[in-house]
Amino acid sequence: MSGGLVLVLGGARSGKSRFAEGEVRRQPAPWAYIATAEARDGEMEARIALHRSRRGEGWQTHEAPLDLAGTLKALPPEQPVLVDCLTLWLTNHLLAEHDLDAEGAALESALAARPGLTVCVANEVGFGIVPDNALARWFRDAAGLLNQRLAARARQVVLVVAGLPLIVKDVTP
Amino acid sequence: MSGGLVLVLGGARSGKSRFAEGEVRRQPAPWAYIATAEARDGEMEARIALHRSRRGEGWQTHEAPLDLAGTLKALPPEQPVLVDCLTLWLTNHLLAEHDLDAEGAALESALAARPGLTVCVANEVGFGIVPDNALARWFRDAAGLLNQRLAARARQVVLVVAGLPLIVKDVTP
Amino acid sequence: MSGGLVLVLGGARSGKSRFAEGEVRRQPAPWAYIATAEARDGEMEARIALHRSRRGEGWQTHEAPLDLAGTLKALPPEQPVLVDCLTLWLTNHLLAEHDLDAEGAALESALAARPGLTVCVANEVGFGIVPDNALARWFRDAAGLLNQRLAARARQVVLVVAGLPLIVKDVTP
Repeated sequence: MSGGLVLVLGGARSGKSRFAEGEVRRQPAPWAYIATAEARDGEMEARIALHRSRRGEGWQTHEAPLDLAGTLKALPPEQPVLVDCLTLWLTNHLLAEHDLDAEGAALESALAARPGLTVCVANEVGFGIVPDNALARWFRDAAGLLNQRLAARARQVVLVVAGLPLIVKDVTP
Repeated sequence: MSGGLVLVLGGARSGKSRFAEGEVRRQPAPWAYIATAEARDGEMEARIALHRSRRGEGWQTHEAPLDLAGTLKALPPEQPVLVDCLTLWLTNHLLAEHDLDAEGAALESALAARPGLTVCVANEVGFGIVPDNALARWFRDAAGLLNQRLAARARQVVLVVAGLPLIVKDVTP
Repeated sequence: MSGGLVLVLGGARSGKSRFAEGEVRRQPAPWAYIATAEARDGEMEARIALHRSRRGEGWQTHEAPLDLAGTLKALPPEQPVLVDCLTLWLTNHLLAEHDLDAEGAALESALAARPGLTVCVANEVGFGIVPDNALARWFRDAAGLLNQRLAARARQVVLVVAGLPLIVKDVTP
């Protein structure tokens, strides 16, 4: 079986996006790329452009800074999808002061409804010392809970370290 | 063999407490729960209440913000114990300006004296960039050294990632 | 085969240096120790002295805060080498405003030219929340990219957690 949810976790500049792209590419094109980033400043714009040029041909790009569940539902159910990344999507909802728990539930149900492969990239952000500011702590908690929630229903969970995969869970039949 | 020391490491909101509870519950109740948290503010109070309501029946709660070694020694030697968590206990000693090395040694000897299962939860805090302030760096060093020390004598060491266990060491006979 | 590149990653106070020393010591002395640290303050001086006293006999120490490639090339090709650590070396180049990409390429080619064992220690720094300041973000990116680059050509990559090795890659024949 090649469908279902794959969760790719990693730190900053761990190579998690590149690894996730490779997983999606093992299935036939066209692949859907759901970008959750919003180009708020030059630093972010440069990063988005770099990712886009690396991906190359065969990708259909969708932008979903907020409505990730709706975007997933509108895709052909069997199309392989890369979501990059959940942590930015969560940040966007946090900044918009949305109900993160409700958004997480809507995302879970959209993912559960897809028979095709969905590879979701997320940051692992909890391995540092406790942040000074309360918003950062709140975000760190929300990101950790979302990761747990999706990991529980994922077929495979991978932690990318220096570009290499550590398999944390694999229940592929 | 089902006794001995198990060290459960993880980042913030990694699901490490929940995983550790599950490990203790595999043995017959009653289980001892040693809480090291002190409810210094509302944020911490809410977190403590959440953990307590999740644990449910079968747990005997002990509070040991500082005297963890003494609390361990006073328990029945075969009773399964969950210590949650070592990082807060270390913080309490650091704020009290105690000798962290001596406290670590006393803890090690109390753990070594227990034939029953003792599952200790600790934060992995060293995977970020170097903190700006000296106290945070000192704490990060102390937490890392304590984790190394206990890991060396543990029967099993687990790193919890998104609620899932990565086995780092297992010398269970 | 006992030569080639081994990359040892870990957080602060994870025991990565001690683990890396043990790997080098499995080969016959004398071993080369390449220190990249510069004693800029008392905290750093104390850390360097501690590492030196722990290593003991059999080590030939070389200092290479910047010219790591040149130092590697000047060693006997089969001598076992420990480089501790790449993250400080990168910091030194960053502070000197050198071209990090060019330095990384020079290092890669020096490593590729060594038939003997070269164990490189590096910090994994990307698992926290996004740092507030731009220099810290830039450093975090550069460190992550360097780790990926070396991991791709390493024979073995190890993540040290609480003094214990998690094998991330092993293509030892």
